[in-house]
Amino acid sequence: MAPRGLEALAVYRGSPDSLRPLASEAAVFTVVIGSTRTSTVPGVSIAGATPEATLLTPTLDVEYLLAGRPLSLDVIPVTPEGIPTPALVTRASLGLAGDVPALVVDAGAHAAPRVPHVALPSRRVGERIDTGHALPEGTAERLYGEARLLGQQLGRGHVVVIGESIPGGTTVAMAIMEGLGYRARGLVSSAGPENPHDLKWSLASRGLEASGLIGKRGEPFRVVDAVGDPVHVSVAGLAAGALEAGSPLVVLAGGTQMAAAAAILDRLGVHPGGRLALVTTRWLVEDPTSDILALVDQLGIEVTLAAAPLDFSGARYEGLKYYERGYVKEGVGAGAAAALAMARRGLGPEDVLRAVEAEYERVKGARL
Amino acid sequence: MAPRGLEALAVYRGSPDSLRPLASEAAVFTVVIGSTRTSTVPGVSIAGATPEATLLTPTLDVEYLLAGRPLSLDVIPVTPEGIPTPALVTRASLGLAGDVPALVVDAGAHAAPRVPHVALPSRRVGERIDTGHALPEGTAERLYGEARLLGQQLGRGHVVVIGESIPGGTTVAMAIMEGLGYRARGLVSSAGPENPHDLKWSLASRGLEASGLIGKRGEPFRVVDAVGDPVHVSVAGLAAGALEAGSPLVVLAGGTQMAAAAAILDRLGVHPGGRLALVTTRWLVEDPTSDILALVDQLGIEVTLAAAPLDFSGARYEGLKYYERGYVKEGVGAGAAAALAMARRGLGPEDVLRAVEAEYERVKGARL
Repeated sequence: MAPRGLEALAVYRGSPDSLRPLASEAAVFTVVIGSTRTSTVPGVSIAGATPEATLLTPTLDVEYLLAGRPLSLDVIPVTPEGIPTPALVTRASLGLAGDVPALVVDAGAHAAPRVPHVALPSRRVGERIDTGHALPEGTAERLYGEARLLGQQLGRGHVVVIGESIPGGTTVAMAIMEGLGYRARGLVSSAGPENPHDLKWSLASRGLEASGLIGKRGEPFRVVDAVGDPVHVSVAGLAAGALEAGSPLVVLAGGTQMAAAAAILDRLGVHPGGRLALVTTRWLVEDPTSDILALVDQLGIEVTLAAAPLDFSGARYEGLKYYERGYVKEGVGAGAAAALAMARRGLGPEDVLRAVEAEYERVKGARL
Repeated sequence: MAPRGLEALAVYRGSPDSLRPLASEAAVFTVVIGSTRTSTVPGVSIAGATPEATLLTPTLDVEYLLAGRPLSLDVIPVTPEGIPTPALVTRASLGLAGDVPALVVDAGAHAAPRVPHVALPSRRVGERIDTGHALPEGTAERLYGEARLLGQQLGRGHVVVIGESIPGGTTVAMAIMEGLGYRARGLVSSAGPENPHDLKWSLASRGLEASGLIGKRGEPFRVVDAVGDPVHVSVAGLAAGALEAGSPLVVLAGGTQMAAAAAILDRLGVHPGGRLALVTTRWLVEDPTSDILALVDQLGIEVTLAAAPLDFSGARYEGLKYYERGYVKEGVGAGAAAALAMARRGLGPEDVLRAVEAEYERVKGARL
């Protein structure tokens, strides 16, 4: 029989033992949402039916996650091809886990979600990163500090899992990492099989140029104000606060974007002491258009890298089978949610698929 | 030796066994804040240096709770006599407990807290209850539904403790209970040794009269829209959601106000199945000007009533000794926070006092 539970997770870097708290400790699941107008540049993001529609995707994702249906618009976020949001996987998986509360954190969504959500006081939408002025000066540091306060609470006795939803996020992640002095060009992922690396680099490099950061290693908050967005720095602050509070494990729940959050922690000199992991999906790690291993390997801090071995090739629905063809891959903490379900309930990836299918059926039946 | 831990809690109604999850299960602590302009009527509330200042008290309370100091004004909430907010007890106690995250829930604060807080989409300040139109029609039901969604998450595998901060709250609580057909006149508590029962009843009765509810048993959401505030109904919704999610124990963390939250649940037909408790302080239960036992006894639903046996008579600071003279008594979930600390760490009330003294010292030293 194929391995189940914690043992079924694929570990690519670091110690599998560091993941034990996923199975054994109290946990809380957060999704940090926000928008960057970078996602409205045609070609950057397919996390929405149209480039403009991507601005609403984070709001719809978390409304669906908590309420079972989107509220601000009566439509589940889909790609232009109609492939559904990874929030499906997240919701189904957290339902399986059973004992992990989900909390939405609004770092700067275009529209405030119509469900209860943690509001960061300095939340705001990011401008296009090619301006070199993505956020007003000082915003990154304020968001970091506010998210850190939240993390200092959530980390008390709890594994803190931190997912994200921000279309255009991988483009911003690359810009942040390059601005911090890492090599990220051509290494970040995308939600489609065609990864627009040239377009991404053109936006990032123009922003870095405009802000005088090109080819330099910038100070973290200055880099984020210049070419960042509200989400990555808030994820970093939340992680830092949770680590300070003694959390047994902080999980960056996402793909290559989370390497940028870890990079901010690295440059700020945070020492996770073996309690930081990046947990994603197999699809993301195996993505031929990106290289999360190359990103993580550049970090000075220790980060365990693992993935839930999800396999939708036998899915009963076409919309889900697309996940095997390079679409979506990750988002809304889908991989880590699946990992939590598997680790806490001793399940295999096929159990997760069954739950996702049931959820997909419910959602389609509801004509959302 | 005096009893310590769970055994040291005083249980007045229901089974002490129902409180075991306080010691053994993962837990989350929430503080629901909001304002009612009822608190600006001179004489109603001393939860602020002046009647107008009471509008800001909830915001300052939770800023202090999370950040260690108030941010919107550089002053710890005090009574006109300078007696400090019960948030001191809450913060010190949650520090002792160590593994219980605190979350602020804004149901309608006069000023949004400058710390991360869960925003309920329909949050708003309540008008004076003597108008009979405290909230716009439909607000109570919306707040209940939104808080319930939050509770459905937090209740997953967690004890959910629900505190409050809303000056004027006991006056509103009385109006709600009377509107729901319970007897509450003269039975609710206050933050001072002189309890202005006549003033409270005059406001409540005028509101009930104006809304056509006097002497009737009204429908819960209609009663709250007429003579309620944003907090009580949100507390009820949060509790209902957590119970639905299978929470092992939902704790209404406050004094006589929490009887009104329980009364809303009672009239809505929620069945807690032995998983609902009201946990407060000894000062509140022993208050000669109110009668929480008489309020709880009228409820059709089963509610365990317990208190942390706090004793500040030997406190090193005058400001704390006032708690023994009928001041403050409860608020910001102080009693339940102390109970959590005692239950989870096997502590006695003297340990809580030591921690509160240390915190008071820090706060005074910081000249807040």
